[in-house]
This record gives sequence, C-alpha cells and structure tokens, in this order.
Amino acid sequence: MSITSLFTTILKSDQILGPDDLSHRYHHIWHMDQPLNALCVLLPETTQQVSEIMKICYAQELPIVVHGGLTNLVGSTETTGDEVVISTERLNKIEETDTASRTMTVQAGVILENIHNAATEKSLLFPLNFGAKGSAQIGGIISTNAGGLRVLKYGMTRQLVLGLEAVTADGTIISSMKKIIKDNSAYDLKQLFIGSEGTLGVITRAILKLEEAPQSRNAAYIAFDEYEDVVKFLKYMDSHLAGKMSGFELIWKNSYQQMTSVTDAVKPPLPYDYNYYVLVEALGSDQIKDQEEFQQILENALENDLILDAVMAQSPSDIEWFFRIREDVNNLVDFMKHDQHFDISLPIPLIGSYIKERYETLALINGVEQVYAFGHVADGNIHFMIGKENLSNDLKKKIDHCIYGGLKEIGGSVSAEHGIGTHKKDYLELCRTKEEISLMRSLKTLMDSKDLLNPGKIF
Amino acid sequence: MSITSLFTTILKSDQILGPDDLSHRYHHIWHMDQPLNALCVLLPETTQQVSEIMKICYAQELPIVVHGGLTNLVGSTETTGDEVVISTERLNKIEETDTASRTMTVQAGVILENIHNAATEKSLLFPLNFGAKGSAQIGGIISTNAGGLRVLKYGMTRQLVLGLEAVTADGTIISSMKKIIKDNSAYDLKQLFIGSEGTLGVITRAILKLEEAPQSRNAAYIAFDEYEDVVKFLKYMDSHLAGKMSGFELIWKNSYQQMTSVTDAVKPPLPYDYNYYVLVEALGSDQIKDQEEFQQILENALENDLILDAVMAQSPSDIEWFFRIREDVNNLVDFMKHDQHFDISLPIPLIGSYIKERYETLALINGVEQVYAFGHVADGNIHFMIGKENLSNDLKKKIDHCIYGGLKEIGGSVSAEHGIGTHKKDYLELCRTKEEISLMRSLKTLMDSKDLLNPGKIF
Ligand SMILES: Cc1cc2nc3c(=O)[nH]c(=O)nc-3n(C[C@H](O)[C@H](O)[C@H](O)COP(=O)(O)OP(=O)(O)OC[C@H]3O[C@@H](n4cnc5c(N)ncnc54)[C@H](O)[C@@H]3O)c2cc1C
Ligand SMILES: Cc1cc2nc3c(=O)[nH]c(=O)nc-3n(C[C@H](O)[C@H](O)[C@H](O)COP(=O)(O)OP(=O)(O)OC[C@H]3O[C@@H](n4cnc5c(N)ncnc54)[C@H](O)[C@@H]3O)c2cc1C
Repeated sequence: MSITSLFTTILKSDQILGPDDLSHRYHHIWHMDQPLNALCVLLPETTQQVSEIMKICYAQELPIVVHGGLTNLVGSTETTGDEVVISTERLNKIEETDTASRTMTVQAGVILENIHNAATEKSLLFPLNFGAKGSAQIGGIISTNAGGLRVLKYGMTRQLVLGLEAVTADGTIISSMKKIIKDNSAYDLKQLFIGSEGTLGVITRAILKLEEAPQSRNAAYIAFDEYEDVVKFLKYMDSHLAGKMSGFELIWKNSYQQMTSVTDAVKPPLPYDYNYYVLVEALGSDQIKDQEEFQQILENALENDLILDAVMAQSPSDIEWFFRIREDVNNLVDFMKHDQHFDISLPIPLIGSYIKERYETLALINGVEQVYAFGHVADGNIHFMIGKENLSNDLKKKIDHCIYGGLKEIGGSVSAEHGIGTHKKDYLELCRTKEEISLMRSLKTLMDSKDLLNPGKIF
Repeated sequence: MSITSLFTTILKSDQILGPDDLSHRYHHIWHMDQPLNALCVLLPETTQQVSEIMKICYAQELPIVVHGGLTNLVGSTETTGDEVVISTERLNKIEETDTASRTMTVQAGVILENIHNAATEKSLLFPLNFGAKGSAQIGGIISTNAGGLRVLKYGMTRQLVLGLEAVTADGTIISSMKKIIKDNSAYDLKQLFIGSEGTLGVITRAILKLEEAPQSRNAAYIAFDEYEDVVKFLKYMDSHLAGKMSGFELIWKNSYQQMTSVTDAVKPPLPYDYNYYVLVEALGSDQIKDQEEFQQILENALENDLILDAVMAQSPSDIEWFFRIREDVNNLVDFMKHDQHFDISLPIPLIGSYIKERYETLALINGVEQVYAFGHVADGNIHFMIGKENLSNDLKKKIDHCIYGGLKEIGGSVSAEHGIGTHKKDYLELCRTKEEISLMRSLKTLMDSKDLLNPGKIF
C-alpha cells in the first residue's frame, strides 16, 4: 500500500502530495532549489483533519514534520525522507477579530503580515514583527516563541497568546481556546507547546492578544563611548518614557560604519566618532506632544552629559531611514565570502565586556574576515554576523566556541530567539543543566512516546 | 524510629518541629486558632537542604505540603495529618538586587513587602501587589501565579519571573537561574512550576524582573449607565494613555453604594446616579504633565459623550481614598452573616450581560442576602462577594452553580487568579476539557509518580 493511500479517506486528493509531487516543495525558503525529501506532504484544513492524520501516523509509527512558513533559522524544518510533512498552508483562516476583547482567532497557517493587516483594519495592533513577516505563519511563530523588534514593550510570542489548540502525537486535541487574560484554573498547558519547535504537538489554532494601535512613533540615534553609559541611558529612557519605549537597539562602532556606508538610503545619521550607537524607538498616542517630550528628554540627557551626541527623526521617512540601517543585514552579508550568524543572550551589564572579548578573540582566528555585533540590548539579545573565508567545519566550530564559550559561567543562552532545531543541538548543554535536559527529555517521552514529532530536533 | 529523626543528619535541631511543637503552627493565616495537623514541620535554609529533605521523603514515601505565607484563598495549604510540611520561612534571603540588569535574586520565602522595599531602595519597582503583601511569600506567589492590582500594565507573576530554581519529587534540583529576558534554548521549564500550586515541585529560588519606578500616579472615578460604554472607554483610555494605564477597575452600582457608605474615609467621589463606576489608574514619569494629560483625556471623553461623569484625584491622599473604596472589602463583608467569594474570568464584552444575569438569578435563591460584584474588568476578572444566611452545603452549591454555571459556553474560568486548591476541585471541569485534565494528570504523574507533592490538591 502506498503512503498516500493511508490518508485518502480523511483528505481530498488535492490535500495529498505524494512522492512524485514534491519537486516544487522545499524545506526552507532559502533552499527553494532543493526539492523536499519526504514521504508525502499533507495539507489539512481543520483541526479535525490534523487529528485524523496524526492518529494514522501514530498507528503506523510514521514520523511527522510540520511545515509553517519555513523561515526558521535553525534547521528545524529539515527532513530526512522518512517523514510525513504536514503543511499548515491551508489552515489559513482568520476566524474572528474581536475589537472589544481585543483578540484575534486564527488558524495556525495564517501569515503574520495578514494578521497585521486584519488588526490594522480594526485600529488594533498585533505587535509581533520581524523581517520574515511576509512568509512566517503564526503556528511556526508560536512554535519558536519568536521575538523581534518590539519585545521590550509588548513581550515575546509567549505573552501574546491567550488561547491555543494543539494536537498531540496520538491525535488527541488539546483545546484551550479562551479569550481571557487571566486563567489560573490548574496547569497552563499552552506553555508546553509554545517554543517547543513542533516536538510536543501540532498547533492548529490560536487566540492572539491585540493592542490598541499606537498613534505616534518617534526614534533617535544616540552616541556613546562607554558601554556603562549605554546601560545608564537605557534606565534613564525607560524611566522617562514610562510605558512608551518600544525599541532600544545597540550597534557597535564597526557595524555602524559598515551599515551606513553602502548606499545613500542608509547614510549615517551621526558621525563615525563614537564607540556605540543606540537606536531608541517610542510608540505613543499623540505625535506632536510625544515628539516634543522625546526631544526634551534627549536634551536633558545631553545637558547632563548622559550622552555624547543625538539625532532625532523628524518625519516618518527619517524613521524608515533609521530602521533600514539596523535591519538591512544585506549591507553586512553582501560583503562576506561566507557568513555565520549568532543570536545569543546574556545579562545586560555584562554585554560590553563579553562582546569586546569576542571581537579580540575572533581577530586571532585564521579565516575570520569580518565581525559585526549589534542587537536588542534592552532584551540582552546580541546578534553577531561573522564573515569567513571558507566553509570548513573546523573554522565553524572555532567561531562557535569563541561566541558560546563564556556563556555558561555568566548565565547566558545560545539562543535568545531562534530556537535550537538541528543547528544548535550540540550547544544546548552550554546553557542548560544536565538535570534540565533530562527533564526536557522526560517531557518529550511523555508527550511523544514513539518519538514521531519532529524527530532529531532539539535533542 | 520517629519521623523527625529522619532529618537530623541534614537539618539543625531548630529546623525540625516535631508533632509536639505544632500547637503554634497553623495551615492558614485566617485559621490561627486551629493547630496544624502534620507529621512535622521542616525549616530548610538552602536549596540543598530542600533537596535532601525531598530525597528522604521520596524514599520513605512521605507526602509533602509546602507552606509559604499561608495566604492562598483556595485551601491549598491544608493538611490531613500525614504530611511533612516544608515551610519556606527561613529561605528568606534577598541574595542580590542588580540595578543594571533590573533583576532581584531571592529565596522562595522572601515576603512580598520586603521585595517591594528592597526594589524601592534602588529606585526600582517589583510591580506585583495585592492585599496580602505583608505575609505572602514569593515562592507561594509564583506557585499560584498571583495577579493583583497592576496586571494590566505589568502582567501576572508568570511574566515577572526570569529565573527559577525548583526541586522535583525525587530531590533533583532543576536550576534555571538566568537573568535574561529572552531564552529560547529548548523548553521553558519554569513554566511548569509557575501556577502549579506546589504539585510539581518545590520552588527554592527565583530571579525577578524589576521595572523602573514610576514617578507619577493619577487616578479617577468615571460613571456610566451602559456596560458597552465601559468597554468603549477602556479602549479609549488604553489608546490615549499609551503604555501608562495601570488599572481599570469596574464597580457595579449597588457595590459602589455599599463601599462608599460606611465611613467618611470611603465617602463617594461621585453621586449614586449611575449604573457603573470605573476606577482608572495611570503610572508615568512626570506628575504635573501626566496629570494635565490625564485631565485633558477625560475632558475630551466628557465632551464626546463617552462618559457621564468623572472626578479626578487631585492629591496622593485622594488617590488613597479612591483605592480604599475599591480595596477595603471589609466594608462589604462586615455586614454579611456569612460570605462566599468568587474570582471568575470571562471575555470582556460578555461581562455586562453575564453579571446582570447572575444578579437576577441570585435574587431568586433563598438564603442569599447580599450580592456585590466588582473586578479588574480590563483583565476580564470579576469578583463576587455574596452574603448568605447560613453555611449549608446546599446553599453554597446553589450559589456556586449560579456563578459558574454559564462559564463553559462562553470560555470563562472558575479561577482567574486564586488557583484551584481544594475549594474549586469540583469545578475544574467547568472550564477545562476532559483532554486537558487528562494531560495535566499525565504531567503530574510524570513529575511526581508517587503522588507525594501536595496530594489531593487541584485534582
Ligand atoms: C528574514 C528573517 C528574519 C527573522 N527575524 C526574526 C526575529 O527578529 N525574531 C525571531 O524571533 N525570529 C526571527 N526569525 C526566525 C523566526 O523563528 C521565524 O521566522 C518564525 O518564527 C518561524 O515561523 P515559520 O512559520 O516560518 O515556521 P517554520 O520555519 O515553518 O517552523 C519553525 C518550527 O516550528 C515548527 N512548526 C511550524 N508550524 C507548526 C505548527 N503549526 N505546530 C507545531 N509546530 C510547528 C516547525 O516544525 C519548526 O520546528 C527570522 C527569520 C527570517 C528568515
Ligand atoms: C487579603 C488577600 C488578598 C489577596 N489578593 C490577591 C490578589 O489580588 N490577586 C491574587 O492573585 N491573589 C490574591 N490573594 C491570594 C494569593 O494567591 C496569595 O496571597 C499568594 O499568592 C500566596 O502566597 P503565599 O506565600 O501565602 O502562599 P501559600 O498560601 O503559603 O501557598 C499557596 C500555594 O503554593 C504552594 N507553595 C507555597 N510556597 C511554595 C514553594 N516555595 N514551592 C512550591 N509550592 C509552594 C502551597 O503549597 C500552596 O499550594 C490574596 C490573598 C489574601 C489573603
């Protein structure tokens, strides 16, 4: 019996792609040239269908890999050829936008940008935002507990999910679809599925928490020479902007120089005289008042020698310019022969010295050509982009060890946002204890005793 | 061999209270006249000691009940006489307040008020706050995922815990003590212990997230006749106060009348002409500016007929007066023969009609003498205080059924904040599905196969 025939009683024929239909499918948006290696791809349209699929896979002991938007950065949607792929692309309905509850009820396959648009239509905001918004789906986003640009004000995905529906390995539907903000009726099961990269269950629906759409946006670049002053300024801004601060990004001198020297669209807002550049963003309710207030707060900081230099965006197009500098990583990557990226987190006061030491050590590694650090410093989350001359495993490992090497002692993490997947498996024990990993494995065994859900990922 | 002798090799003699020492111990601060019924009380001072205790209990199959501040409202610290009680009262050290990380590292037995004071000393804020702050301990607070007065702006306990250390049933120490805001390195194990009422492990230490202390506080009472207008006003205020709104409490007409008619200290800020009274609070950075802004927002609301009447606090003592009205539940309870309390949550747009129906039904129940509703409406969390003429189980059940009866269909919860404990066990299935409860039980069995941790609670 062929694999696909297992599913013909529960799915229509156009919801089943057999081995011959996979030449135009792939495992990641960055590998569209590599045809997918899988037993079949299934395209369910309801939770019930996902449950039926999983019952069959459970009975037949067929491993399952869920494909959302395929934008993850850790190899967590890779397949070996032996798996049934469940793609959520047809679970794409926005079921309801409730303006009074300020919630949106969605199926797992809804693309983030569509959620943004539906919220905006009702003068609401779904605050989660990052570069892959045109492809990433909410199910994948929840499964990776994604962060992005506005974690500081609104939190990571975990804080934005009120209700969740997921199917466990044996096909059981765990439905916790409530629109309520507070629910202490026993264990909060949705926490299990959030951030577990498809290894504990398949998410099929969610109720998202929306916010009132902000009416003002302001931003500025500020310059520093000492890292300690960056931290003081973070506290100062947070305190003076009350709840309005939505971004506090730090860029190291050499990264700033490269980011602002490629085209006129990213010309430097401040001169190259300083060691650190901070991009601060605030979201509020009244553009004119908020802009005045923001300006006043910066002027006071200048007068009190808290900062060395500052420039404020005077228009929406300035804001766009300011953010393009920080976000367009191609301005870094395009000049690298090969690149290697990092997404670490560590306690805020230790960032200055930790990154300084990494720059120094990387400079001594043969084959490392460029090193650029920048990050969401208010969240303790630093990205490194490292250019290197070859793809040898030896060089890769040396760089990994340099970046990750000191994290354990200072209580950092090898993954702030992106997850573990396959790429960071080897480094998990650098930031989690033996006892933690053993408890994680027990949870995995409890929820998926046959090891069918995204096997080989995380552990 | 006596029970206490099991622990003499790991604890000093003054850390062990045997059966004869329990006459001045109790299971709840409201039952200080009832001596504790337990095998012994142990007073560990370190995580290591908790672990050693639990290894012994595991080997001997002795059930454990943890006692924090004993302020929970659901009977979750009750004992039957067969348990070892671990009291966290000597785990009372604040290990560090880190102003740059904005974190505080504490042992589980630190009292909430002491955390407030230590934060204030460094111009920081631990935002969690509620009536029992002088007794409740952070371990108990985390175990119940407490909410309180400022959830709207700062979140429940779950959002305020960055790091956690807990000991599982067999004595294994699960230490996830990191000062970082973002950590997507595999499963977020601390979520298991938060809100599980001591049934999955014993919390010994935590790293708390602190906030910059606000520099301004404003509040107002606003009057409405229609519930729909309350919801519109919530959206209006949230949008205009940007991130500053910290409280939005709703009081039903008859509750307001009673709350403001007992003493001069709680005299009514607005006349008794309306159906609903809202208390709004905002925390900001500049008292004069923020007060002007708040006033302006209210004036605009009046001009646009969004609200019927409003009065703003003009001084800190006004604010105290405004909050005393809402918080001093004795002004309700003192006039009841017997009282029964509720802490439900439900979707915000449905609150008006749900509560109206409960008032109507309760009026028909023989023995119900007073009904007062009020609550954190922005969180969808409503409290009922019901006065009744006797303590019969029949009357209690009738009232329970009236309040809880309609929650399932509308996706509400029988416990917004307080947990399940023993008091709400019978009603858990009114807000959680069979499949959810079965998964919870599996988790419990995984983590505590011998059913030794707070047995008989929740399930
Ligand atoms: C340009 C770019 C920028 C990015 N910026 C950020 C950023 O700023 N912050 C950040 O946190 N991340 C960022 N990311 C990575 C981020 O993790 C992903 O973009 C997103 O969260 C994954 O969504 P997806 O639908 O593409 O998931 P996929 O890649 O399809 O899947 C991710 C994981 O979730 C699983 N999965 C998917 N759907 C489900 C489901 N319904 N149920 C169970 N498991 C499921 C998959 O099996 C896989 O393990 C970025 C990625 C790109 C390409
Ligand atoms: C006057 C008053 C007002 C209140 N207001 C609010 C409010 O506004 N919002 C709200 O959410 N709650 C409120 N509460 C209830 C609230 O749940 C508790 O006050 C508090 O969270 C419990 O802390 P505790 O230290 O007293 O815990 P305890 O009562 O001692 O214990 C509570 C539960 O946690 C377990 N536990 C305790 N310590 C640990 C530990 N270290 N590890 C594992 N398990 C442990 C216990 O076994 C028990 O199951 C109020 C209570 C009172 C008396």
